[in-house]
Amino acid sequence: MLKAAICGGSGYTGIELLRILSGHPRVEVTAVTSEKSAGRRLCDLFPHLHSYGGMTFEPMEKERLLSKADLFFLALPHGASQEAVHYFFSRKKHVIDLSADYRISDVSVYESWYGTPHQFAATLQKAVYGLPEIYRSRIRKARIIANPGCYPTSAILGLLPAVRNRLVDARSIIIDSKSGTTGAGRKADVAVAYCEVNEGFKAYGIGTHRHTPEIEQEISCLAGEKVTVDFTPHLLPADRGILTTIYAKLSKTISQDKVFAAYHAAYRKEPFIRLLPPGVYPNIKNVRGSNFCEIGLKLNTRTNTLIIVSAIDNLVKGASGQAVHNMNIMMGFEETEGLRSISLFP
Amino acid sequence: MLKAAICGGSGYTGIELLRILSGHPRVEVTAVTSEKSAGRRLCDLFPHLHSYGGMTFEPMEKERLLSKADLFFLALPHGASQEAVHYFFSRKKHVIDLSADYRISDVSVYESWYGTPHQFAATLQKAVYGLPEIYRSRIRKARIIANPGCYPTSAILGLLPAVRNRLVDARSIIIDSKSGTTGAGRKADVAVAYCEVNEGFKAYGIGTHRHTPEIEQEISCLAGEKVTVDFTPHLLPADRGILTTIYAKLSKTISQDKVFAAYHAAYRKEPFIRLLPPGVYPNIKNVRGSNFCEIGLKLNTRTNTLIIVSAIDNLVKGASGQAVHNMNIMMGFEETEGLRSISLFP
Amino acid sequence: MLKAAICGGSGYTGIELLRILSGHPRVEVTAVTSEKSAGRRLCDLFPHLHSYGGMTFEPMEKERLLSKADLFFLALPHGASQEAVHYFFSRKKHVIDLSADYRISDVSVYESWYGTPHQFAATLQKAVYGLPEIYRSRIRKARIIANPGCYPTSAILGLLPAVRNRLVDARSIIIDSKSGTTGAGRKADVAVAYCEVNEGFKAYGIGTHRHTPEIEQEISCLAGEKVTVDFTPHLLPADRGILTTIYAKLSKTISQDKVFAAYHAAYRKEPFIRLLPPGVYPNIKNVRGSNFCEIGLKLNTRTNTLIIVSAIDNLVKGASGQAVHNMNIMMGFEETEGLRSISLFP
Amino acid sequence: MLKAAICGGSGYTGIELLRILSGHPRVEVTAVTSEKSAGRRLCDLFPHLHSYGGMTFEPMEKERLLSKADLFFLALPHGASQEAVHYFFSRKKHVIDLSADYRISDVSVYESWYGTPHQFAATLQKAVYGLPEIYRSRIRKARIIANPGCYPTSAILGLLPAVRNRLVDARSIIIDSKSGTTGAGRKADVAVAYCEVNEGFKAYGIGTHRHTPEIEQEISCLAGEKVTVDFTPHLLPADRGILTTIYAKLSKTISQDKVFAAYHAAYRKEPFIRLLPPGVYPNIKNVRGSNFCEIGLKLNTRTNTLIIVSAIDNLVKGASGQAVHNMNIMMGFEETEGLRSISLFP
Repeated sequence: MLKAAICGGSGYTGIELLRILSGHPRVEVTAVTSEKSAGRRLCDLFPHLHSYGGMTFEPMEKERLLSKADLFFLALPHGASQEAVHYFFSRKKHVIDLSADYRISDVSVYESWYGTPHQFAATLQKAVYGLPEIYRSRIRKARIIANPGCYPTSAILGLLPAVRNRLVDARSIIIDSKSGTTGAGRKADVAVAYCEVNEGFKAYGIGTHRHTPEIEQEISCLAGEKVTVDFTPHLLPADRGILTTIYAKLSKTISQDKVFAAYHAAYRKEPFIRLLPPGVYPNIKNVRGSNFCEIGLKLNTRTNTLIIVSAIDNLVKGASGQAVHNMNIMMGFEETEGLRSISLFP
Repeated sequence: MLKAAICGGSGYTGIELLRILSGHPRVEVTAVTSEKSAGRRLCDLFPHLHSYGGMTFEPMEKERLLSKADLFFLALPHGASQEAVHYFFSRKKHVIDLSADYRISDVSVYESWYGTPHQFAATLQKAVYGLPEIYRSRIRKARIIANPGCYPTSAILGLLPAVRNRLVDARSIIIDSKSGTTGAGRKADVAVAYCEVNEGFKAYGIGTHRHTPEIEQEISCLAGEKVTVDFTPHLLPADRGILTTIYAKLSKTISQDKVFAAYHAAYRKEPFIRLLPPGVYPNIKNVRGSNFCEIGLKLNTRTNTLIIVSAIDNLVKGASGQAVHNMNIMMGFEETEGLRSISLFP
Repeated sequence: MLKAAICGGSGYTGIELLRILSGHPRVEVTAVTSEKSAGRRLCDLFPHLHSYGGMTFEPMEKERLLSKADLFFLALPHGASQEAVHYFFSRKKHVIDLSADYRISDVSVYESWYGTPHQFAATLQKAVYGLPEIYRSRIRKARIIANPGCYPTSAILGLLPAVRNRLVDARSIIIDSKSGTTGAGRKADVAVAYCEVNEGFKAYGIGTHRHTPEIEQEISCLAGEKVTVDFTPHLLPADRGILTTIYAKLSKTISQDKVFAAYHAAYRKEPFIRLLPPGVYPNIKNVRGSNFCEIGLKLNTRTNTLIIVSAIDNLVKGASGQAVHNMNIMMGFEETEGLRSISLFP
Repeated sequence: MLKAAICGGSGYTGIELLRILSGHPRVEVTAVTSEKSAGRRLCDLFPHLHSYGGMTFEPMEKERLLSKADLFFLALPHGASQEAVHYFFSRKKHVIDLSADYRISDVSVYESWYGTPHQFAATLQKAVYGLPEIYRSRIRKARIIANPGCYPTSAILGLLPAVRNRLVDARSIIIDSKSGTTGAGRKADVAVAYCEVNEGFKAYGIGTHRHTPEIEQEISCLAGEKVTVDFTPHLLPADRGILTTIYAKLSKTISQDKVFAAYHAAYRKEPFIRLLPPGVYPNIKNVRGSNFCEIGLKLNTRTNTLIIVSAIDNLVKGASGQAVHNMNIMMGFEETEGLRSISLFP
């Protein structure tokens, strides 16, 4: 049994890790930290976690944690992860970081979007961007995984086959994303109060959201040229799910069949990608609670545009499920271990 | 008092007309028709309409209705309106048609998107597209109003100042819309059942939605050239509201201040347009139950794109409220009569 | 025009007063206070209130407010209202207090349930419990209105005819209430965060909710004997509305017709009570945004129990709408002034 | 591997069985029937079931099904199950019936509440009411399980220790239940349309719901005397979950500690009952997607009433999960097999 610790375990991604790992036959969760809730039992804050029995949240004392686990999931705020990743990595541990701190390989880009210096540039070079559909072979050998952001996961998976195969002009990409409210985290804030979100819908952070450089990094890499993208996130009155609608101009005349063929070729062996047939489009409700990404395609010949729609559960494929997937690859477990449950519909 | 009849009064736009007109001091609703519910009292189907007392839905017997009203709101299915509009118009009545039958001035475009011939091409030429912000002076003299579709209202109002002033390249327009479920109408259909829609979100009719030619007609007219647009509707887990996010490439370098100035100039006298300051974006919750359209703007200099966000209540500004606004203009009432109530927040 | 001030205007009951009063032809809101938001424009916090123009929240400086208004709506926290009511009342103003501070006429009962002494027992005796259906004639002459709590309004209106006419045994009453989340107020609190409330439902404060003594005071008064009741509130995943289901044992054999007759007699002249026919039951959706109370009845002869269901909008009939109703009565305006709008359905 | 067939597999309980069984290591689903959808692939109607590959819904041809499976889950409408249960039972199969047809042991009671004769009275006597917490030992030897209704499951589990131990007067029981909308089934019906249910809440079938005799049968049995109960169901704007609030008069003075002790004694070995500590009450959100029943208790000494609150997921513990639990017991599998996943929170 692999001993795993979760640092920052009382947020939504933390408790989602606990939910998923409770059904993983090869992992034992040996410690869960929470600054705010240290000393309290998991099941007192979260009755649904009663199968963890009397386990309590503990303070983030890194030295003590070292002896408790071999793999560390870090679900800490951006910035706070920098030092923790370095600490565990330099003591020979495996680290899966769910923050943004190790996702952006260009330190200056990180610093300009996140407004804080990066103290561990050398360690940063050891991190692998944890999108298995692109970096599976590197993940196998990694000891630091920068687990992708939720929006970037949905956007990059939607675009990968089209951009890599030069079906579209990468400079024309427009990404319109809509996320459930768990994406904002678990917090006391009027902005996410029930009566403010329910029956509402809005865009936010237009052109300034911090997931933008992460998307641009990966799309540029796939395109073989540096690109900028328009990315607009919206807040959905739903708990879970991201639906991303992507618009890209075709780089040449191509049939819809060829487009589907390119997507099929890219994804047919992927265990968590579900390519939908022509005319069928994703719904966040179909992936809720599962690690699947649904993708639908429409080639609009009137406007010469490829429209790609992808759907994920932001807490699973967009965070904790993908983290477990990365763990499975890194530790040599079967890739789908702990991640096979069907989505909860309805 | 103006005598008004509502044909097709048991759907969501019909009962919304009844709600709004109940507070209008210059209109008396003298008849409401419904094929399915003829003979039943309004308040038996809709307890909230009890202020209409014992009034009953009646069958759509046009001849009998003639004597009852001077103005007819038609909330009938597409296709069914063609003949009814012609009938009341040719008998000297005022008609406000909430269907699509008289919105598309080019008969061949109508026929190809709606899949049915238009039998009254001559009458069609008398109809005025009822978007007051563009056609106010023509509405004043009209006797047939083609009340705009909900999506087109949100899209055209968002784009009007930018396209008319040539701030953007009209051929680059991408329209990503999200609508509450009342937009699908009141019907027995598993696709709109609570447990299918709740906690879900999906795109539908990508590139094929019938509101596309309506948007293109008006944007082409504003642009002075024929344009096609990408238009993608989505279904929101909310009762009311459309939020439309629009992307358009700038036609030249321009400052954000100048963009706001153009919008301010276009809309400062409009009673139902609310231009939000820079950095503030619309929320459908802020317009719920009201006739307002909120508009927010972001000039993304990294990508040379103007992003426009508009929000309306699809049943009010997107349907019945706009119909009453058109009535007010057409009949010489004060424009905001019956439409002054503040939105129901939260 | 009556000059009215709202003290504590940035919570949900405060902004609901602003919404309702914006359509009241005989009232001008001259001041709105908010400790937290003093100095900020109403429309910056609440875009839907833009019709109040540049009006700003001001600090609660009572002396300065004196000159600005003749009637004061107090939407302050419990406890904070005690002194404010006394202050304005003793300076000859009319006061409508939406807190619980002046609802409980027995000071010792207030103190034991609210855990704080009452400093103004003499002033308390001047207050009238503002339920028009019981105390209309006293409200006419009052200068202090203790506006009823939301749960008590729904419970007392449901029970009034049955208890007053001795149809049921008042000692057997069980009140099971379910409230929308606005009832918890506008606040930064994880407990009312969207993702905690949505898709959830729970009971809280069983047997200990502070609305219990308020209900017992009025039911005891109607019954002519001192009674205790079981009262269980629940939190609904909805913005607005309270549905209360009440169980009471019949005191004697009686037909359902007689029960309906008693309710009809009690309420037929009431402008805001809607008695539903046998077999039809209330829905909070039918009263949303309106000042109506819907009541449905079922006499269960198998169990000898009368089941009463009532529905109100907690922010309107359960708070701000009832406050305006009280104002109308107190100031001699038409009772329904400002309160005639139909509920927003759907 | 046990071969299991699901008859009536395209409703919500049917697809929930498919979801749960997909993770059960000892069961293979060999056939799924659906009259309406015969011939269509499971994943075409329900994309989340894509792990069932090309499996198609088939018509309900009993003879052909006989050779395909050894255990039959029947998720057919009430009435339709009568003959099917008899058919498979008399051909030596195991049957778990999710309809009400075999729940009521007294044929005359069944016939008077369901309005249809029971054709198989002899077979009815072979059926065991499948509530494991009461009938575990009989379930082990049964070949027909009458799987309990969702409301009865929540009510009976809440009451069991109190009634069996004579803590309360069984003739005073009042059951106020609130159910998510999946309880109404998957159907094309305006009454369950999103815009009718969302932001609404109502009671229905007061005193007449068909789950009443089922509750009374089991409570009478536990009480050792024939009792009637007040039972009021309500419709929640949520997908899943039943919360039941139960009121019962204490039969004698008893301390809260003793009440908790009785519940603890009854349930401490039960794998799916979660007794909450004093002051903590259930939330349907904490059991969503899981087979758990949460129970909370409050002894109100002011009114001499025990208030019991129970929460289940109506599709799991209230239907398909309990059916799998019954299968596990009947077939000698480990009781929690296939049912260990933690609830999906949030």
